[in-house]
Amino acid sequence: MTQIKNIGVFTSGGDSPGMNAAIRAVVRTALYHDLQVTGIRRGYEGMINGDYEPMNRKSVSNIIQRGGTILKSARSTDFQTPEGRKLAFFQLKKHKIDALVAIGGDGTFTGAKLLGEEHDIPVIGLPGTIDNDLIGTDFTIGYDTAINTVVNAVDKIRDTAESHDRLFIVEVMGRDSGLIALRTGVASGAESVLLPETDLGLDALMYRLEHGRKDKSSRIVIVAEGEREGGAFEIGDIVKAKFPNIDTRVSILGHIQRGGRPTCMDRVLASRLGYAAVEALKEGRRGEMLGVIHGEIAYTPFEKAIKHSPEINKTMVKIVEVLSL
Amino acid sequence: MTQIKNIGVFTSGGDSPGMNAAIRAVVRTALYHDLQVTGIRRGYEGMINGDYEPMNRKSVSNIIQRGGTILKSARSTDFQTPEGRKLAFFQLKKHKIDALVAIGGDGTFTGAKLLGEEHDIPVIGLPGTIDNDLIGTDFTIGYDTAINTVVNAVDKIRDTAESHDRLFIVEVMGRDSGLIALRTGVASGAESVLLPETDLGLDALMYRLEHGRKDKSSRIVIVAEGEREGGAFEIGDIVKAKFPNIDTRVSILGHIQRGGRPTCMDRVLASRLGYAAVEALKEGRRGEMLGVIHGEIAYTPFEKAIKHSPEINKTMVKIVEVLSL
Amino acid sequence: MTQIKNIGVFTSGGDSPGMNAAIRAVVRTALYHDLQVTGIRRGYEGMINGDYEPMNRKSVSNIIQRGGTILKSARSTDFQTPEGRKLAFFQLKKHKIDALVAIGGDGTFTGAKLLGEEHDIPVIGLPGTIDNDLIGTDFTIGYDTAINTVVNAVDKIRDTAESHDRLFIVEVMGRDSGLIALRTGVASGAESVLLPETDLGLDALMYRLEHGRKDKSSRIVIVAEGEREGGAFEIGDIVKAKFPNIDTRVSILGHIQRGGRPTCMDRVLASRLGYAAVEALKEGRRGEMLGVIHGEIAYTPFEKAIKHSPEINKTMVKIVEVLSL
Amino acid sequence: MTQIKNIGVFTSGGDSPGMNAAIRAVVRTALYHDLQVTGIRRGYEGMINGDYEPMNRKSVSNIIQRGGTILKSARSTDFQTPEGRKLAFFQLKKHKIDALVAIGGDGTFTGAKLLGEEHDIPVIGLPGTIDNDLIGTDFTIGYDTAINTVVNAVDKIRDTAESHDRLFIVEVMGRDSGLIALRTGVASGAESVLLPETDLGLDALMYRLEHGRKDKSSRIVIVAEGEREGGAFEIGDIVKAKFPNIDTRVSILGHIQRGGRPTCMDRVLASRLGYAAVEALKEGRRGEMLGVIHGEIAYTPFEKAIKHSPEINKTMVKIVEVLSL
Repeated sequence: MTQIKNIGVFTSGGDSPGMNAAIRAVVRTALYHDLQVTGIRRGYEGMINGDYEPMNRKSVSNIIQRGGTILKSARSTDFQTPEGRKLAFFQLKKHKIDALVAIGGDGTFTGAKLLGEEHDIPVIGLPGTIDNDLIGTDFTIGYDTAINTVVNAVDKIRDTAESHDRLFIVEVMGRDSGLIALRTGVASGAESVLLPETDLGLDALMYRLEHGRKDKSSRIVIVAEGEREGGAFEIGDIVKAKFPNIDTRVSILGHIQRGGRPTCMDRVLASRLGYAAVEALKEGRRGEMLGVIHGEIAYTPFEKAIKHSPEINKTMVKIVEVLSL
Repeated sequence: MTQIKNIGVFTSGGDSPGMNAAIRAVVRTALYHDLQVTGIRRGYEGMINGDYEPMNRKSVSNIIQRGGTILKSARSTDFQTPEGRKLAFFQLKKHKIDALVAIGGDGTFTGAKLLGEEHDIPVIGLPGTIDNDLIGTDFTIGYDTAINTVVNAVDKIRDTAESHDRLFIVEVMGRDSGLIALRTGVASGAESVLLPETDLGLDALMYRLEHGRKDKSSRIVIVAEGEREGGAFEIGDIVKAKFPNIDTRVSILGHIQRGGRPTCMDRVLASRLGYAAVEALKEGRRGEMLGVIHGEIAYTPFEKAIKHSPEINKTMVKIVEVLSL
Repeated sequence: MTQIKNIGVFTSGGDSPGMNAAIRAVVRTALYHDLQVTGIRRGYEGMINGDYEPMNRKSVSNIIQRGGTILKSARSTDFQTPEGRKLAFFQLKKHKIDALVAIGGDGTFTGAKLLGEEHDIPVIGLPGTIDNDLIGTDFTIGYDTAINTVVNAVDKIRDTAESHDRLFIVEVMGRDSGLIALRTGVASGAESVLLPETDLGLDALMYRLEHGRKDKSSRIVIVAEGEREGGAFEIGDIVKAKFPNIDTRVSILGHIQRGGRPTCMDRVLASRLGYAAVEALKEGRRGEMLGVIHGEIAYTPFEKAIKHSPEINKTMVKIVEVLSL
Repeated sequence: MTQIKNIGVFTSGGDSPGMNAAIRAVVRTALYHDLQVTGIRRGYEGMINGDYEPMNRKSVSNIIQRGGTILKSARSTDFQTPEGRKLAFFQLKKHKIDALVAIGGDGTFTGAKLLGEEHDIPVIGLPGTIDNDLIGTDFTIGYDTAINTVVNAVDKIRDTAESHDRLFIVEVMGRDSGLIALRTGVASGAESVLLPETDLGLDALMYRLEHGRKDKSSRIVIVAEGEREGGAFEIGDIVKAKFPNIDTRVSILGHIQRGGRPTCMDRVLASRLGYAAVEALKEGRRGEMLGVIHGEIAYTPFEKAIKHSPEINKTMVKIVEVLSL
């Protein structure tokens, strides 16, 4: 194993709060070890296009508390081809970058895996996505902030739901994962959560509206964006058709869920992982995503991390039901 | 003028943050003057149905900081008829209520005006709406909270807009008033604001996207829900069709704008107006909406308050343009 | 084992955000199982004085998002005596309460342990304290909210520290535990953290101020309230005496750390534990504190839970140092 | 009057949220008029030391939402002498700066007045201070943010006050002005406010604790830092001595009040004033502080603006008393 001298760091895929804290940790830890660090802007697209900038201590001053990513992010179709990756590797060599820290989600790691296999460069991945849908870490960077954003928004919606005796169907993010929906459903005292992983959500909701307590002054239903029956508007139409007397409204929380100042937990997670990423590269590790499992740093090969099948905790589904009775 | 002994208080129309602070102020001030206070639940609907409850000090403990309205709100079609109002008056007499404080918007005051004209009961109105679209007050109760909710949400959206070099079209509330859009447009550093009161918004935006700076890393456009060209999705389609290279997204902020803990300003405004409402009734005033104009309590007859034609400050429109250049 | 029919629930010791969510979960889960639930107000003091109230679904409506505890909390010197506990047991029997859920910290569990040993009543404890200083759970209810409150406060302080090139010494809570200080130190990008568990904090800080970078525009030092050298004011005096050219200020965050709306994580933790507490009592468990360890419910005997010796993660201390270089 | 070509902008005195929004507005408006803008760092100290940097559009990107001041602030004793001001003017000329926008409080304007009198350079001032203690504007930039920070903090403190039946004495900023204390006292439902402008605060509080309702579960007293009887600790000692049965605690909110993301109102005020400052200089105005009075831009000579004698609205003091009964 050759000595690493210059680490490239980049963010890719959807941005998530805490990515800046991770970048800061990578940069500062590398500098602490007298390594150079190069910021690669706009993910794989910038890697191919040579959109690089040397990073110093000041580059990452006062960013730990900021949402988004100062290195920006983008999708790259070129990088999905062997030619694109070859070009990217050429650029990396040209800029004397001999190791990479990739911050992103499964698409990011799929690319990182191929780059590391086809070319001789060690890559370490950090899980940066609000969806929490990766194997190899208890939580992804950004998830804790996103669920707090959702809960704060639903608290506001509940104020108006209570005042008008309404049922609100609130759609949250998560792609094909219900992890945001489930946890925010518990935390916001929702009536029901409709998850992409289970078939039963809508039936259970309809049953409950028909046979359950009639004296509830407000009801919140959390729908994951990937929910099988269709989005929140479709669910809303079904409910309205069957229960015309219930004043039903739909709210799509949308992109506010991706931004905002990261929570304490996300900053700590990002800082620990950024620090560990540089340590891992120094130790000769490559082709792995780092995570925190049970409080300890865990190393998961990219091919395993991206084969996510987030398990839904069935007790949590039950808890939503029992506590909103 | 007969001595008032029992004041009825209610909220009507869309809820707004600070209504609870206003209720608290009415109740506590009335009790201070050894008057009785009766809470009327669900607005005019509850007034007709006899949904009344006596209020004491404890009834309004610990509510100053809560969004929504503990007295709930509802629309009433019955009250729009003379028969409905007669029934309401009958119920008020039955419960020995001899004066009213109505908290709401123009619909509320239209009803209050008719009730006070057709029947012998003094009514004082307080402006409770996030839209700030009433004559007779510099600000309505709830407006300041709503614009802060919008600005906080747009701050989050800007994080992700910056990270991905996107243009975001954000739709805010305000019915046929652009006051929420204009002020939040200035405060969130928006590229443009599209207001229902002006024709020029969309043209100016299109001109700017075509001829303006190309190096902007993100753009925020604020659209008022009543904007003439259609909602944010329609605006988004127009922009996407003409500028396919701009990564354009739409976000409808929706009902989060109605809820949440009221800001300091909204609590102070609500407290002052609630206090002044009881004083006004004691002084024999009736048929007026109270507001604060230039720091002083102002009295505006209902018929004038509801004829709102919110003026748009043209300098503010210019400021949005200049400061986002 | 006798069938449980009526569960008493109470909060004791310092309040923490999420206690209400835990109470709600206990009440709703008990009702779900057709058990009665009695709220005991003001902790052990109310238990002795008979300050009891039956709880129903409505009793815990709309409290999941509220800080503090609706059952209130108090210290009781009487309960520390066998006579006091005997009296408490007498009152419990009189009110036909045959099981208890105690929400609080080590003092609460010490009392619960003695009560359960001396008298025949099963008690389950839930960890409600911002200090996170209990064995038997990865996190206590309230800790996540408290560290976010601290981080938000330090973000504000950093604004002014940056503007004036100041060093701020910020004192945070935690009694004899540095867990709040350590995590918030990482998350707020602090220069140093001074912890009660280590001797080195102050020396390291002084060394760094003398030999470290001189070009830092602001510095934040987090001091745990139990730190050995004395509180933040004492540390401030030491720094000022040795480095008169550094503009040094002290801020004691104080009681804001105990209150506020609980975070998503605290609400989920509280909901899971409240649900599990009732399940545990139904299964015949007693004398244990419930926690969540590695994502699973864990059962720890009271005598073990209260013998806390919170371990300080040395890598985290290193991370603070490295990342603020 | 000579044509202005290069405007210098600086912040001075205590920082306040919204200063960055004002800087942004000055820079962007100047650029809009094809003027140059120079940022002067660290207030008058930097003006003397030549700490200048040219500003462009990018210099003020993404700062509208940030607390503090990117131009930093400092106190300068040198500038208080004619020689210091002469040196400052020499530096300004050397950098071809021919007009100034000074953002700060009374100390800032005192300096600006002298500079403008002794040397030929037009200066316009913008009111940037959390204290709201200047004549010539309804609100100063930062005041609205500060009072919301206070109210949010007191909301948290009330959670714990309610849980433990405590009286909290909360000290807020404001130097010799009670405007922060009074408004936050109303908004947080305080029992009493103790203001530097009135003698009666402490007597009224003591009378009330002795003769008022005994069944209040919590009490909040807001003390302005300049209150005559001494700070919050002294008030706390007096209360504890006379009412040993009341569980009394003290909390000094401190420097969190100076920082944080500015509210919508502060950003709008700062944007309007920054825009108007450049317009004013172009029109040949000098020696004036700009403010907003009754919604319109107002111009006040420096000598008048700094002679503040903030009037206390007596009805507001009464409202605190009546609403907390």
